[in-house]
Amino acid sequence: MGDWDALYATRTKNMRASEIRELLKLLDQPDIISFAGGIPDPALFPKDAIKAAYDAVLTKNADAALQYSVSEGYRPLREWLVQHMAGLGVACSIDNIIITTGSQQALDYLGKLFISPGDTVLTTWPTYLGALQAFNAYEPRYDRLNPEQGNMTPAAYREAAEAAGGEVQMAYLTADFSNPTGETVSHDGRIRLIELAHELDIPLIEDAAYQALRFDGEPTASMLALDCERSGDINNTRVIYSGSFSKTLTPGLRVGWICAAQPVVAKLVLIKQAADLHSPTINQMAIHHVAERDFTKQVEKVRGSYRQRRDYMLDALARFMPAGVTWTKPEGGMFVWVTLPEGMDGAALLAQALKTVRVAFVPGAAFHADGSGKNTIRLNYSLPNKEAIETGISRLGKLIADEMA
Amino acid sequence: MGDWDALYATRTKNMRASEIRELLKLLDQPDIISFAGGIPDPALFPKDAIKAAYDAVLTKNADAALQYSVSEGYRPLREWLVQHMAGLGVACSIDNIIITTGSQQALDYLGKLFISPGDTVLTTWPTYLGALQAFNAYEPRYDRLNPEQGNMTPAAYREAAEAAGGEVQMAYLTADFSNPTGETVSHDGRIRLIELAHELDIPLIEDAAYQALRFDGEPTASMLALDCERSGDINNTRVIYSGSFSKTLTPGLRVGWICAAQPVVAKLVLIKQAADLHSPTINQMAIHHVAERDFTKQVEKVRGSYRQRRDYMLDALARFMPAGVTWTKPEGGMFVWVTLPEGMDGAALLAQALKTVRVAFVPGAAFHADGSGKNTIRLNYSLPNKEAIETGISRLGKLIADEMA
Repeated sequence: MGDWDALYATRTKNMRASEIRELLKLLDQPDIISFAGGIPDPALFPKDAIKAAYDAVLTKNADAALQYSVSEGYRPLREWLVQHMAGLGVACSIDNIIITTGSQQALDYLGKLFISPGDTVLTTWPTYLGALQAFNAYEPRYDRLNPEQGNMTPAAYREAAEAAGGEVQMAYLTADFSNPTGETVSHDGRIRLIELAHELDIPLIEDAAYQALRFDGEPTASMLALDCERSGDINNTRVIYSGSFSKTLTPGLRVGWICAAQPVVAKLVLIKQAADLHSPTINQMAIHHVAERDFTKQVEKVRGSYRQRRDYMLDALARFMPAGVTWTKPEGGMFVWVTLPEGMDGAALLAQALKTVRVAFVPGAAFHADGSGKNTIRLNYSLPNKEAIETGISRLGKLIADEMA
Repeated sequence: MGDWDALYATRTKNMRASEIRELLKLLDQPDIISFAGGIPDPALFPKDAIKAAYDAVLTKNADAALQYSVSEGYRPLREWLVQHMAGLGVACSIDNIIITTGSQQALDYLGKLFISPGDTVLTTWPTYLGALQAFNAYEPRYDRLNPEQGNMTPAAYREAAEAAGGEVQMAYLTADFSNPTGETVSHDGRIRLIELAHELDIPLIEDAAYQALRFDGEPTASMLALDCERSGDINNTRVIYSGSFSKTLTPGLRVGWICAAQPVVAKLVLIKQAADLHSPTINQMAIHHVAERDFTKQVEKVRGSYRQRRDYMLDALARFMPAGVTWTKPEGGMFVWVTLPEGMDGAALLAQALKTVRVAFVPGAAFHADGSGKNTIRLNYSLPNKEAIETGISRLGKLIADEMA
């Protein structure tokens, strides 16, 4: 029997299970304190509201809920999202909105739409690991966005891309409470990114997965809202907004959306039709039912809970981390990003931490398109409770101090 | 403002809304009798069972139903499918099964896994339109399978593929009650296809969407079962089985599966992780709940209903079609394939039929990778009732006779 490996297309030949996936298997062990996940606290899911939603949908609207439907998504949900986007300063119509099976699918489709092999994608170092995984299927190279310290010039990005045999095709980042750093791009940084996208004439993907989870500080306008203001009309913008209900309502229904200029949405509808016909209608109806009634209340509940845990984690880091270790102070989201002393390796520390102090986290190199960031780690605080945070960070601080000694 | 068209990757630049999609918009008009759809009758959906399933899942298992989960799918559903596949003569384990968001997604992921631009995909003329749409995103050329009248030799397929600048990378067909023809490939035809796949060392995708819907005649073994027998073990086979609950239970939950050699499933898990993380867990749990209790009963119900409508349609065709028109006699599935007299154009006939007799169907050329088949049309009988079938076919027969006169 021949080898399957020989039969795969180039783009998929080198796909391997990520170390992080292997790592997550360890977390079933109950004595491990885990800051490794990136998942919401299920205690916050609006279970009763979701149960009532499915009951209502299957009582009143079963035929449509269970039948094939259109690729662009359930119209009342898209109408609700038009209002939701208006609240973020984005004037749009339902033709600017397509529903996706979670925002991960949005990244896959956008990669499919814009990236040819050898093209360049601009992103921050570090960036969302899942975005790199989604885009990698289309074989891009990456170059670095640095919205606060200074991006390269459009000409420099172009030259580097051409030298690598492709074109600069898109830019991607999470501007609010990013995964993995928890950091937020400033208003001026956003304006610089939007100008860069227009100068390069490329789409700028705004991953807004955590945007609603602001605990404190002043809200910064969405990049799509800023581009609408600059460009006069959403159909003249270059920002593609990728939204998600996963961090506010629940990830299990897999409902996200894209809001962008109409030609992009029309093309994504064709891609989706060919790729999975449509996201499950019943889930879109259920999400609409819950969002319409409870979105604001639910977001407040999640914010309140994560704000408290963010505080527990920042307190614990301040108490237990040795000098020479630094970390971000997120105003929202689910993560703190820790920089270890130069020369310390996050992956080696993880191996050690699992063995000796039974604490898990994600080494930072995985989030870097160029494999740098070895002395960084990502800590999640949305799932562990106060006691786990204090005990885990105390153990981790001691381990790091020992390693430094 | 620049033009978005210039920004798309090669593979998506030429995507256009299909004429069929435009056509389907017309069907909202209530006075049209439609044989154009390919959708199940919602009256047959097991609504009470599905409602009970969501209620049970959200009562007993809400945390897991609403949380992120693994890309390979909900384990109890995969275990149920191991038993289901055993019933089809396929001995496998859960490592041979991945859940997909409907079988359309399976086709997209298989295209992503196996096709590089310029490669050759073998399929029947005609074939499932959605498969052509899914594969087209990966820029293949197509060559023709002809399992009954005679495939080309492996060397001839190879030479043609190489002359076109690629390799023969996979074969795809619906062997049972195909969309669009309703025809089934014989046992000998299946054996020839399996031998061809092994000789060419390529995967042979068995689209089994309609396989459970046999009304009469002797069942023919699944190609995967035949390859297991030939190759001794599923992990030595080249057949990739794509299954779906859409035609038996409901399409709205978007649950399908792939059953194949373990290395292929492992690779598809990585693709799925990067492309949408996982199919909605809550829907997988609900489908499992219903399948476990009602699958056999539900399949019997659907078969009985569609058998009757198939009979109504074949009777009506015999009564109302003029000499010179021929059609298939499907033993299952949802479609009859009509061949019009040479020189008559299905697309022109549709335009005429919509205008004068208010009857809709799908012109056959869309299902041909080479655009041939202009004098064919697809008729669906799973949705219209007896009266609609008789009235619609009577009107259509008269129109065709008039056109021939």
